[in-house]
This record gives sequence, structure tokens and C-alpha cells, in this order.
Amino acid sequence: MTSLCDVLSRIEPADESAMAAALERQRVLTKPPGALGMLETLSVRLAGMTACARPRFERSVVVVAAASHGVAEEEAVSAYPPSVTAQMVANFVAGGAAINVLARLAGAELLLVDAGVSPDPGPNPGIRRERLAPGTRSFLREPAMPHEHAERIVEAGAALAMDLAREGPLLLAVGEMGIGNTTAAAAITAAMTGCSAGEATGRGTMVDDEGLARKRAVVAEALRRHAPDPRDSIGVLAAVGGYEIGFLAGCCLGAAASRVPVVLDGFITGAAALLAVALAPATVDYLVASHRSAEQGHAVVLRHLGLTPLLDLGLRLGEGSGAALALPIVNAAARTLDEMATFGDAGVDGPARAS
Amino acid sequence: MTSLCDVLSRIEPADESAMAAALERQRVLTKPPGALGMLETLSVRLAGMTACARPRFERSVVVVAAASHGVAEEEAVSAYPPSVTAQMVANFVAGGAAINVLARLAGAELLLVDAGVSPDPGPNPGIRRERLAPGTRSFLREPAMPHEHAERIVEAGAALAMDLAREGPLLLAVGEMGIGNTTAAAAITAAMTGCSAGEATGRGTMVDDEGLARKRAVVAEALRRHAPDPRDSIGVLAAVGGYEIGFLAGCCLGAAASRVPVVLDGFITGAAALLAVALAPATVDYLVASHRSAEQGHAVVLRHLGLTPLLDLGLRLGEGSGAALALPIVNAAARTLDEMATFGDAGVDGPARAS
Repeated sequence: MTSLCDVLSRIEPADESAMAAALERQRVLTKPPGALGMLETLSVRLAGMTACARPRFERSVVVVAAASHGVAEEEAVSAYPPSVTAQMVANFVAGGAAINVLARLAGAELLLVDAGVSPDPGPNPGIRRERLAPGTRSFLREPAMPHEHAERIVEAGAALAMDLAREGPLLLAVGEMGIGNTTAAAAITAAMTGCSAGEATGRGTMVDDEGLARKRAVVAEALRRHAPDPRDSIGVLAAVGGYEIGFLAGCCLGAAASRVPVVLDGFITGAAALLAVALAPATVDYLVASHRSAEQGHAVVLRHLGLTPLLDLGLRLGEGSGAALALPIVNAAARTLDEMATFGDAGVDGPARAS
Repeated sequence: MTSLCDVLSRIEPADESAMAAALERQRVLTKPPGALGMLETLSVRLAGMTACARPRFERSVVVVAAASHGVAEEEAVSAYPPSVTAQMVANFVAGGAAINVLARLAGAELLLVDAGVSPDPGPNPGIRRERLAPGTRSFLREPAMPHEHAERIVEAGAALAMDLAREGPLLLAVGEMGIGNTTAAAAITAAMTGCSAGEATGRGTMVDDEGLARKRAVVAEALRRHAPDPRDSIGVLAAVGGYEIGFLAGCCLGAAASRVPVVLDGFITGAAALLAVALAPATVDYLVASHRSAEQGHAVVLRHLGLTPLLDLGLRLGEGSGAALALPIVNAAARTLDEMATFGDAGVDGPARAS
């Protein structure tokens, strides 16, 4: 497997000349300049990511990584029992979850990753096994995972994204499943951005007021105990993270190293992106924010990354649901840039004052 | 052709029992209740429109109606010359416009209607001819069209939607082309909602400050001269409307009469919807707002109709571009409702406090 160091060394900023060419083409397509709004700005970014003036994506893959969380087992931070993580993985394999429906509709392949689900789903042709442990320990009491695991799970995610990228022009969407992972994402977000535990921590899958207070206390106490250093993503992941979050941070890095756009989902994938961008700042050039999650910490993540989401539909599911919903919009940005006629080709007059 | 009276008499409100059944099903699907946000509320509305607890749409059609506007010929209200209307129709036929790309991506059929384009594009297998005149007269000087034309063009739109609906479960999206039609839409919006000409009138396809002042003066003066009655949609259409706007108002009515959801585009289709809803108030139950246009009058329209748009991407193109972009989201709302597994089916536990 490629070492993390190698992956990071391959990540380059967006290509300026492809962006300039895309911007120039947008000016002569048969529409008033700027009339396609965010589709136009996104198309220029996609050109920069792919270093191609007219990018096309023949394939979309939604990587959904799942893992269990000690903090859910031991600290009652979720309204749902920890058993739901493995049950939902089975639901993904059976095709009955929201992400199955949404990936099908988007024409995307769904790639399911066991990054440490408890109980072990066992070998299954529908699940890629990347488990180093049956989930994290409770980070209120001890580090979530060994430092070595943190580095290895990021490397595994990067390796997957780089493998997928070798098969041709790709849009990568990322999603997750893990009861308790909004608590881990909140701790990561607070650690990486410097915001308070209160700002970073929301209701997740609908905890009540008492549960929310408990979650916030857990996050605040964990940050106090571990004092994670925001310059050390691997250390933050080891202290308060989750295996699926580390895996998805790796996916972001591997995609960026391969010039592949990454369509983020909501809060948890956003926390993964925070870790990735701290490891290699140019990674942010490859990130597309699919939607603004109803989970409150997501606003902190988007602000820190400087990303504007495409959708704002009040989603708060995870699984990659928002990312899959945004895939047609990302494709629309690329296809309008590539396929529309120019004023010259179509014999359409420009503004009267210019003619 | 079915008379307008017959069409109006067939329009019934959304079906309450289908909506109740859809809402009940949303509660037991494998996700926290409400976690799919606006997809859930939309799915319930779609059930009400179709009178079916689990609606599916096998076919999507984007109807793009085009017509010329005397107000553009004579009052210089657009930055683009009036010739662009016919040129863009040719671009639609050739497949080079944004709506061609976006309809293809959404898997939707594009149905192009000549509702009065000047110069006459002539018979063409790619264009449905519904022209009663080569566009409107300048409504600053005289009524835009004869009263009889206004009624006939609405009936023609209704007939098309009802014909399309006979071929099976359908999502109808609507779009338009007509240089000058933001001026007509502004006059309709002011007439139907009572807002001022200033509120209703924006920059359209990028007129400069002087052009905007001229547009506003034209709209204000036309409203003063014709004093259109908001209780008389046909009268408003005849006074200050456009043929494509009347045709699309008819599409809304025909769709509602056939229990077919109508996905609106931006400001001009919104003005058409205002006319339709005033003719048959239950039509609003069948309308889906695809996006919030950057054109300022659109906010007035959405508020008056009580619709929340799915997208806010800064689009201001028309052509049905926003409607086509929203089709995958509308389908996603229906498919998640229909295809997701329930907690019972999938063996997934509900919230811990309930188990």
C-alpha cells in the first residue's frame, strides 16, 4: 500500500490553466454569462480539479464506510442502540436503505466498506473489509483507537480512492454509517476548528434535550482530557475519531492525489474532510459540498473549509444521501460546459449593445 | 379540444387519504423520522397529487414554450435583440442549449412548442406548432393579444398536458423562451399579486441600470393603462401577457386536471402558474417549485403561491433549466418513499427509548 506520505506528496492544487479555459468557454456558450449560476462556478472548479478544460465523468461511485463507536456503547449519546450500525449495513447490502435508492437513481455504484462494524458482519461479497478493530473505544475514557490504526485506516481509504481513479474519469461521493458518529464528528470539528463543544454538537439522530446535554458534556470532557492538536490530524483521529471517518479522510486524500472530485455528504464526511485538508491543504480544491445538513456542526465545517453547498433540503440522514442527490447537479455542471453550443456555432446573437 | 371550463371543472384538491398513507409510511422507513427533510414533505405532496400512496413516475417531459414579444421589439426592454427568440428555438432543435443537456441528463423528453415565434420557424418535426400569431403586440401601446387568443392558447396548453398524461404516470416540467418575457411576467406578477412594478421587475437577461428603469416604467405604465383585474386571468393575459406564458398556464391546468405534478422553472413559469391558480385555486396543490431564480420578481411569485423551492443555485436562464435540474430530486422523493425498506422488513431497531 502507498504510504500516507506518498499520497500527500502527490496532491497538487487545482490546475489554473484548465480553469481559465473553462471560464472562457462559459463566456461564449448560448446563455447570458453567469445565467447558470453555481453550475458555472462548479464547472470551472471541476476543470481545475481534473486539469481538463471540458471534464466529463463516465462513472460515479458512492463509498459508504461504516464503523461502530465505543462512545455510543458506553455513553448513551444516541437515541438509537449501537446494534443499528450492523443492522443498517445489512440493510445496505439488501438494497433497502435511502442510499441504495438514491445511488441507483443517480446511476452511481455503491461501494460499502466495513471499517470496523460490531458485531462483525463477516465476509460478504457486498462488503469490502477494511476493519482493524470492531470499532472504537469510548473516547471519554481512553483514546478512540491506537495511533497506528489511525494512520493505517487513512491509508486504506486513500488506496481505495486511488484504485478507483485508475479505471477512468470518476466522480467520488462519500457517505457513512455509525451510531454515535455525530459525537465523534463534533469532537473532531471542535478540535480542528477551535469552535466550542456546544457549537459543534447537535442532536444527531434526534437525541432529546437530556441526550444533547450529555453529548456536549462528553465532547467537552474528551477535548479536555486528550487536548488534541489541530496540526496533527492523525492524533486527533486517534484520540476522538472513528474508523469510518479516518477511512473517508483517506478517500478525500486519495481522490485529490488522483485529481478526482470528491462530493462530500454532511457533517461526518465534513469532519473527515477537515482531517484531510489539515494533512494536505490543497485537498480542499477537490471537495464539493453537496448539501447543508440540518446537523448544526455542519455549518462550522463548511465555514472552515470555505465551501458553499449545492443543496439545502433539510437532510440529516448521512449514508451519502445528500452526496448522491447532488451527483446529477455535479454532472450537469460538467455537461453544460462540455455539450452546450457556443454563440458562434449556433448562430445566436449576443447582447444588442455588443452587436 | 376540451373547453377551458371543462378543464377547470376537473381540477380537484390533493387526495388527503393518499397523503396520510404516505406520511404513515415515511414514519416506518429505515431512517430517523424526518431525516430526508424536504424529500419527505415532497413525497407526501406527490402522493396527494397522484392520489396514490406510493407514486412512481416512469416518464418526464419538459415542455418548453417559446414566443415573441412586441414589448421587446418596440420598447427595448432586453439587452438581447428579439431575433434571439427564433435563434434559440433553432438551437433547441439542434440540441445545443442548456435545456437540451439538462433534459438529457434527467432522462426527460424535451417537447418544444412554437406558441408564436417571430420570424415563423416554419413546420419542423422538432417543433409543435401552437401559434395563433407571430407574438404579442407591445402592451405599452395596446393589449398584448386578443381576448379570444388568450383563452385559446391556455386551452391549447391544457390539451397538451392532458394528452401527455393519458400515456401513463408522468412528471411534467415547464420552461420557456421569449426575449422580453421577464417584462410580461413582471406585469402579470404585479397585476395578480398587487405588488409594485418596481418589486416585480428585475434585470432579466442582464439589462443595465438604464434598461431596468425603462422596464419598470413600461410595466408601471402598462398596468395604469390596462388596469387588469386579478380575478380575470384571461383578461390579464390578454392585456400584458405572452403566448408562451398563456400556453404554460394551460399546461399547469391540464396537468392538475390529470393529477400530474408540474415542476415549475423560474419567474416566467411562475407568472404562468399565478394565472392558472387564479382560474382554479386547487392547481397550486400540483405545483412543485424547482428553484429560486435570481430574477427578483420570482420571490414575489413563490410567496404568493406559498411554494418553497428545492434548489437555490443562482440560476437565471429560464428554458426549463431549473425544472430539469430538479427532476432527479422529485424522482428521489417518490422513489425513497416507494423503494426503501421499513424497520420491520429490514430487522433494524428503532430508537432505544422505544424498544
